Amino acid sequence: MTWLDLPASTGFGITNLPYGVFTSPSSEHARTGVAIGDHVLDLAGLTGDPVHATGSLNAFMAQGPESWASLRSMITAWLTDPVHQDRITPHLLPRASVTLRLPFEVADYVDFYSSRDHAENLGRMFRPGSPALTPNWKHLPIGYHGRAGTVQLSGTPVVRPQGQAQSPEGPVFVASRRLDIEAEIGFVVGAPSALGTPVPVRDFASHVFGVCVVNDWSARDLQAWEYVPLGPFLGKSFLTSVSPWVVPLAALSAARVKPPVRDEALLPYLEDGDEPWGLDLTLEVRLNGAVVSRPPFRGMYWTAAQQLAHMTVNGASLRTGDLYASGTVSGPTREERGSLIELSWNGTEPLALPDGSTRSFLEDGDEITISASAPAADGSRLSFGEVTGRVQAAH
Amino acid sequence: MTWLDLPASTGFGITNLPYGVFTSPSSEHARTGVAIGDHVLDLAGLTGDPVHATGSLNAFMAQGPESWASLRSMITAWLTDPVHQDRITPHLLPRASVTLRLPFEVADYVDFYSSRDHAENLGRMFRPGSPALTPNWKHLPIGYHGRAGTVQLSGTPVVRPQGQAQSPEGPVFVASRRLDIEAEIGFVVGAPSALGTPVPVRDFASHVFGVCVVNDWSARDLQAWEYVPLGPFLGKSFLTSVSPWVVPLAALSAARVKPPVRDEALLPYLEDGDEPWGLDLTLEVRLNGAVVSRPPFRGMYWTAAQQLAHMTVNGASLRTGDLYASGTVSGPTREERGSLIELSWNGTEPLALPDGSTRSFLEDGDEITISASAPAADGSRLSFGEVTGRVQAAH
Repeated sequence: MTWLDLPASTGFGITNLPYGVFTSPSSEHARTGVAIGDHVLDLAGLTGDPVHATGSLNAFMAQGPESWASLRSMITAWLTDPVHQDRITPHLLPRASVTLRLPFEVADYVDFYSSRDHAENLGRMFRPGSPALTPNWKHLPIGYHGRAGTVQLSGTPVVRPQGQAQSPEGPVFVASRRLDIEAEIGFVVGAPSALGTPVPVRDFASHVFGVCVVNDWSARDLQAWEYVPLGPFLGKSFLTSVSPWVVPLAALSAARVKPPVRDEALLPYLEDGDEPWGLDLTLEVRLNGAVVSRPPFRGMYWTAAQQLAHMTVNGASLRTGDLYASGTVSGPTREERGSLIELSWNGTEPLALPDGSTRSFLEDGDEITISASAPAADGSRLSFGEVTGRVQAAH
Repeated sequence: MTWLDLPASTGFGITNLPYGVFTSPSSEHARTGVAIGDHVLDLAGLTGDPVHATGSLNAFMAQGPESWASLRSMITAWLTDPVHQDRITPHLLPRASVTLRLPFEVADYVDFYSSRDHAENLGRMFRPGSPALTPNWKHLPIGYHGRAGTVQLSGTPVVRPQGQAQSPEGPVFVASRRLDIEAEIGFVVGAPSALGTPVPVRDFASHVFGVCVVNDWSARDLQAWEYVPLGPFLGKSFLTSVSPWVVPLAALSAARVKPPVRDEALLPYLEDGDEPWGLDLTLEVRLNGAVVSRPPFRGMYWTAAQQLAHMTVNGASLRTGDLYASGTVSGPTREERGSLIELSWNGTEPLALPDGSTRSFLEDGDEITISASAPAADGSRLSFGEVTGRVQAAH
C-alpha cells in the first residue's frame, strides 16, 4: 500500500500512524511526528503548520475530530501515492535517530479500576471471606484522580519512593518494600467539553483523540497505610509512565469488540449503545526482558466510552490533554495478571525468572517494559510501542 | 503609612497586598494587580514587565521567593513614600470597576483532611461505635488529588450535579439531594521542585507563594456511594471555587501560631521545627447572607508546611500553580463547623435561618459566601476576600 519499504512485521504500518513529539540531531526544536515503519515523518517540517511545532500534541488535539480525520487522511495519501514520494522523503527521519518527548501536556489524570479480574484478585487477597467486589463495582466505573505533574515519558528512572508504612510497632519511615507496576491503557482527551454538560457514551470519539500504554507505578506498603478513607495518594503519585506514541482512535476500527456481558443492569447514562467500545488489545509485561504476563484488554468490564460518560455525568468538564487510564488490566489466568501483587499473590507465590531469581515486588535495577498491540484493518497487528522504566535505589 | 486614603476598616491595607488578575473597562487584556483599599494597582501598566501581562500569576510565581520579596518591597515603597504618588496614581483603578479572573492556572489540586474536629465529626456520624478517627489520621496528613480542571473563580454558578446514589432499591440516577460546602484554606505553589526530591517542612516558604479561600463543593450522596475503595471522585469533581485574591505568605507573619499539641509522636519528616506554620485565620460562612459558622483555622492539626512535606516525601514534584487545600475547617463548637453535613448533623438537626426556613443541605438558589481574615502586622485585620457561589437547578 505504501511506497515506503517497511520492515516485514512492523507494528507501525500504514494503518497505525501514531503521533509523537521528538527532537532530532538536526534540530533540538520539539515537534510533532508520525511513526511509520522505522521512520518518523516530521509533520512540522513537511507541512510548515505551526500547530505541529509547539512541542506537544495539545494544540492539534484541541482542533477536534474533523481536523484529526483530515490530517490522517492526508498522511495516508502522502505515504501511499508515489506522486508524493519526492516531497515526503526528506522529512522521513530514522526513528533510531530521534529523541522522543512526552507527547502531550497532561491536564487532569484519572485512573480507573475497570478490570473485574484485577478488582476480584485484590478483593480476595485483602478481604478474604467478604465479597471480592465492593457493592458499587458493577454499577459504576470506580476511579480517582492521580497526580498529573508526575506523568512522565517512558524511560524516566523510577526512584524508589519513601514514606510511611505500617509495622507491628506503629508507622515507620521506609523506602518502599513493595514497589509494583500496573499495566494499563491510557486514553487522551483532545476536544474539551463545557462545565456543567455531561458527555454521553456516544460522543466518545468526538472527544478522545487516542490511546497510549501506561505504567501506574505503585508502592503497595505506602498505599495500604494511607488509603482509608480518601483513596490512594503517595502510593501512586511519585511516577506514572506513558508510552511515547499516541495511537489515534481511528486506527482501532478493527480492534473494536463487544464488552463482556454485565451482570447488573446499567443506568441509562452508562448503556453501551449499538457500537460499544470494547477493544481487543493485548498487553505484554516484561521484567528484565522476560515476559511475565500478557494481559488481555478485551475483557475489561467498563469501556473507555463508559468511563468518559461517568467522569463527566456530574458536569465535570474535559480539557485537552486530560489522560484517563483503564486501571490494571488483568485476565482470568495467572499469566494474564497486570501487577506483581497479583502475579506473586501478595508475595506468597513469587515469580520465577529465567535467571533463577524470584520476584514478589521490584528490586533496585529491575526494568519493566509494557507493550501493547491490536489487530489492524489490513490483518496485521499494530503496535502501541512500549513504556519502560528501571528502578533506582531510594535517594 | 500609605499616602492613599484607605477606608477605615479595610482588610486590604498596606500590610496585605494580595495579588489577583483582572480586566478593566479600558482594557480587556487580563493582567496582574494588587488590591489596596478599594483600588487595584495595575502592575502591568505600572511596571511594563511582561510577567504581569500574561493573564495569570504563574509566570511571576515561578520566579521564586527572592522575586516575590523584591516586588513586595517595591510595592510597599511605592504606596508609602509620597514621592511615588504622581507616578502610581494613574495605575490605581477602583476595585468596583474591574472584572476579576481566576488568578492562577491550576496545575495539580490536592485536598487534605486536616481538621481533627471535622474528621471526628464525620467519623462519629458514619461509623458510630468505632473510633472517630482512622488509625492513620494522627500519623500523616491524609489527602487525595482532586480535579484541577474544575477549579473555578468565585462566582461561578454551582450547577447541581447529577449522578448515582444509593437507594433501598439499588443505585438510582439523581440530581444530588445532599449538596454541601466545605470551607477551606488553599495554598498556592509558586516555585517548583524536582522529581525525586522531597521538600522538607522548613522549605515551605521557598515554594508556597500564597493563600486563598476555597469552597470544596460536595455532593454527599454521590460521594457516599462511590468512595469505597478509591476515595471521592464525582462527589467533588464538578466544582471547586477559589477566591480571587492570593494573599502572599509574607503578609501572614503576625498570624503565625503554634499548632495544637499532637497526641502521637511524628516521624522526623513531619516535625514542625522551631518556626511552625500554624495560622490564626478565622473563616466565616454565610448562607443567603446569614452567618452560619465561623471556623477557626488555628486549631488545624496539620500545618500547610507539614502537608507540603508529606505530599513530596515520596519524590513527587511540585509545579507552579499547584493548589492544595486544608480540608474542611471545623472547630469544636457547632458554630465553628465548616460544612452543612456537620452543621445539620447529617440532617438530623437542620439549621434555622433568619427568614424562618431551615436547611440541612443546599437548595436551588441558595448562595454561599466564605470569607477569611487574619491578624495583620499593624494590629488591624487583613482580609482574604471571599469565595461565593449560587446553586442552580440541575441541567
